[in-house]
Amino acid sequence: MKIAIISGAPNAWLDLEHIKASFVIGVDRGALTLVEHGICPDIAIGDFDSVTESEFAKIKDSALELVQLPSEKDETDTEVALNVAMTKEATDVRIYGSLGGRIDHSLANIRLLLQFAKKGLPITLVDERNHLMVLASGQHEINHPGLPYISFFALESTVTNLTLNRLKYPLTNYELTQDDIRCISNETTESSFFVSFDSGYLLMIFSRD
Amino acid sequence: MKIAIISGAPNAWLDLEHIKASFVIGVDRGALTLVEHGICPDIAIGDFDSVTESEFAKIKDSALELVQLPSEKDETDTEVALNVAMTKEATDVRIYGSLGGRIDHSLANIRLLLQFAKKGLPITLVDERNHLMVLASGQHEINHPGLPYISFFALESTVTNLTLNRLKYPLTNYELTQDDIRCISNETTESSFFVSFDSGYLLMIFSRD
Repeated sequence: MKIAIISGAPNAWLDLEHIKASFVIGVDRGALTLVEHGICPDIAIGDFDSVTESEFAKIKDSALELVQLPSEKDETDTEVALNVAMTKEATDVRIYGSLGGRIDHSLANIRLLLQFAKKGLPITLVDERNHLMVLASGQHEINHPGLPYISFFALESTVTNLTLNRLKYPLTNYELTQDDIRCISNETTESSFFVSFDSGYLLMIFSRD
Repeated sequence: MKIAIISGAPNAWLDLEHIKASFVIGVDRGALTLVEHGICPDIAIGDFDSVTESEFAKIKDSALELVQLPSEKDETDTEVALNVAMTKEATDVRIYGSLGGRIDHSLANIRLLLQFAKKGLPITLVDERNHLMVLASGQHEINHPGLPYISFFALESTVTNLTLNRLKYPLTNYELTQDDIRCISNETTESSFFVSFDSGYLLMIFSRD
């Protein structure tokens, strides 16, 4: 199942065609964004303190299911949405509106990618210029989404024996430490390429200027 | 010595008063930004392939010193600028124009903060909405820059025995792992607060919506 989660970052870029073909979860103000685009969220989740009463009424009228959370809580609204995604048979989870606002929010969302990569949930953070995902160790053939630059960062520990094939700057058995920025701005002319590594978690970012 | 480094992210926000009181390093297109604000860089560093010939001529005319780097190189231009800062007696290094462009560039700059925190160089990434810095283990009294939210993330390993005082949500002897997002959006009404921890590196982010 394709799942699209729409978070509340301001001026979120949306791929409406992809969203319409997905099970759609609107998170807090993100649910309002959906309603304003004429899309009824399958689920609206949040404490909804970022919307006015009349905006909340719109969400309530449009959402097929409403999950109202308390204001003071341990989990973020996006975390709750991802836990819902875990209960579905999700093969592809995209989060819109999670980048481009406060940088601490963007970093928290990247850490959520890491948390859920450990649980086997494949998530992509998407905006107009960036696609971010976290890979677990193993061999991966990656389909290129058409953004020119490809960057890699080690998360949580060193990524060992990193090998990159069919990229402009190939790499063999590289040890990518967490403060190493040598793997940024790679490029490819192929529609897919290969990434493999033995241990650690790899943040992969496609981007354009 | 105060050092201000101006990187090349588009529409960089600048604190001109702070920059004028600092030793100023313009990195690539950031050197042009300075010239356009009527500030002569003390040093201009870069491969300058992001500027036109006539823009490069302007930089060359204005900069007190010019360091022209090759296009294909192992270090990023910002890294070279920070190595220059290491050779000065820097007590306060601020980097402008390093956030808000491509997210892989922002993340690379956060990893540079980590690299240079290990070398004892105190760096802050600054834009209009965010101040980012990395703290090494120990006790710190932090002067609040006046942005309402304060978030903390562990970098490279677990931050052990994290204690926060004089913040809205104080914390005692907390183990902050690298995928933990519990320490975001703290607040304070004080002009300073206390942070201490025993091991690891702590990314501290001040921000506003």
